[in-house]
Amino acid sequence: MRALIFERGMLRLEKEYPEPAPGEGEALIRVSQVGICNTDVEIVRGYLGFEGVIGHEFVGVVEQVSGEREVDMQARERFTGRRVVGEINAACYRADCGYCQQGMASHCPRRTTLGIGERDGAFADFLTLPVQNLHLVPDEVSDEEAVFVEPLAANFEILEQMHVRPTDRVVVLGDGKMGQLAAQVLALNGCKVMMLGRHEEKLALARQQGILTELVGVEGEHAEPRGGERVDLVVECTGSEDGLEMALRLVRPRGTVILKSTVAARSSLHLAPIVIDEIRVQGSRCGPFAPALRALSQRRVDVRSLISDRYTLDEALAAFERAVQPGVLKVLVRI
Amino acid sequence: MRALIFERGMLRLEKEYPEPAPGEGEALIRVSQVGICNTDVEIVRGYLGFEGVIGHEFVGVVEQVSGEREVDMQARERFTGRRVVGEINAACYRADCGYCQQGMASHCPRRTTLGIGERDGAFADFLTLPVQNLHLVPDEVSDEEAVFVEPLAANFEILEQMHVRPTDRVVVLGDGKMGQLAAQVLALNGCKVMMLGRHEEKLALARQQGILTELVGVEGEHAEPRGGERVDLVVECTGSEDGLEMALRLVRPRGTVILKSTVAARSSLHLAPIVIDEIRVQGSRCGPFAPALRALSQRRVDVRSLISDRYTLDEALAAFERAVQPGVLKVLVRI
Repeated sequence: MRALIFERGMLRLEKEYPEPAPGEGEALIRVSQVGICNTDVEIVRGYLGFEGVIGHEFVGVVEQVSGEREVDMQARERFTGRRVVGEINAACYRADCGYCQQGMASHCPRRTTLGIGERDGAFADFLTLPVQNLHLVPDEVSDEEAVFVEPLAANFEILEQMHVRPTDRVVVLGDGKMGQLAAQVLALNGCKVMMLGRHEEKLALARQQGILTELVGVEGEHAEPRGGERVDLVVECTGSEDGLEMALRLVRPRGTVILKSTVAARSSLHLAPIVIDEIRVQGSRCGPFAPALRALSQRRVDVRSLISDRYTLDEALAAFERAVQPGVLKVLVRI
Repeated sequence: MRALIFERGMLRLEKEYPEPAPGEGEALIRVSQVGICNTDVEIVRGYLGFEGVIGHEFVGVVEQVSGEREVDMQARERFTGRRVVGEINAACYRADCGYCQQGMASHCPRRTTLGIGERDGAFADFLTLPVQNLHLVPDEVSDEEAVFVEPLAANFEILEQMHVRPTDRVVVLGDGKMGQLAAQVLALNGCKVMMLGRHEEKLALARQQGILTELVGVEGEHAEPRGGERVDLVVECTGSEDGLEMALRLVRPRGTVILKSTVAARSSLHLAPIVIDEIRVQGSRCGPFAPALRALSQRRVDVRSLISDRYTLDEALAAFERAVQPGVLKVLVRI
């Protein structure tokens, strides 16, 4: 099969990569669409130490389910021939794993992660995932929309982690893909969401969704808030090692900063404001797929406006070049 | 009156400092005992920009209450001639102050802070504080114990901020004054508390309170955990700019790090582990006095073993020299 491989510091399209064989309880999925995520870009820059097939934001069709246990037969019945999206962490689910047994499978220390950690990913004709990870895609959600379920779920994770009140004042720091989704998710409960970003054209997209926006700084400078009182919640989606320090200037005493950026570089900052103002800094990674699918199905969130460009798998190298250009949001790759 | 003043980078004992005049709703308090806190040491090192009478951990006797409103007369009745301790943040309590009106007076943006911010402190014959800040000291709590109410309350703040379960595994990072009190407070609900520190004689004090201990590194080196699984809660009391990064190596995915150290220097650290492991980093400062007084009154916490030395106000400069020597915990100053 075809597969986009990152190996020895190089990204290349392999034409004759071996098709994966699903293990017991796993599904073989024919991939339809894949999105390029900033994590993919970080991998290609060599920051994450992953080698293999990259890609983790996908939608596809289940070709087969392996295994003969009752659960496998039920899964075969349920999923074969259907469109699915998949949670990316494949956990051990062993009886002695505290994380798996306590509903924290995404933190299982034995987990592999699709296209990110010790598991081949989605930029390929086929991938495999445990059937526990799969979610059926309703007919009213298109393939191109379904690719956004994974990053959208990562923003619903914020609402799993904390109570956001309809009267809260929220700042989303960053106008990229993550910031756009965060702003739409946070705005769902009626609270006032302001996006601070450096790209007028990206801020304009957010305004179409009813998000307040403010243009700050310019590319290469630090974003600085303009006047205005400090807010209850800041969602840090800058992708920059300076993001947390910016967020701490914007959040009120006893407020919360959600950290979304995974930055390879070290950050340098004063921690005393966290103590003096009793700030909660909450790291936030992967999230629940079901609410993300409902939000797309019910048209509560718009992701189509975030698609900047479309490529095919054979054009994947060009797609990656496009994804890192200024002003570009989501780049999709049809398989 | 006598007062210990920090001014133009110098600490000096002034013999003829003007006695403070209580404003409406304020009490004039004759100070009995004061403790030296690390914050006082930071002030004397010039890190906090405060000038005036230093000191904020005190016990004293109310000499008079000023004001003729009904609340003032009630406070006069309640407090005059009685032993009190006092919360250190003097808030505005204005009707238009969101912090004061929502039970967050310790974060009032107009607050002054005893011996720390724009309000003369406790190393003096007299101090003034609003009567709202005062708490009567029960007879069974001695003056020397009562001096610990303020730092003890700062550790009860942790239990205000989060739910600590009796089955949680807790690490207290640091064996100094703050770490000793944190370990005792965290252990109250039956959970397993391990103190990591660099000073065998200080760890021995914690062991007397049923705290598990582990000697790590040596002075000047980084503390490193030895084997052992990652824990649910780490309370960072190192006083070091490296404390958070150490804590992040010890805490489990979805666990909490309580940040207690206020360090003047910038910290350099990787923030990605906070995101990947979805850690909550919670800053924590001042706390509630009433539970701290109850714990002392009911002998649930021992503070007497933490007293390293005793001085008088006339010997205050020597007391400060003593407070920064290795191995020293609390130094008390009798007024």
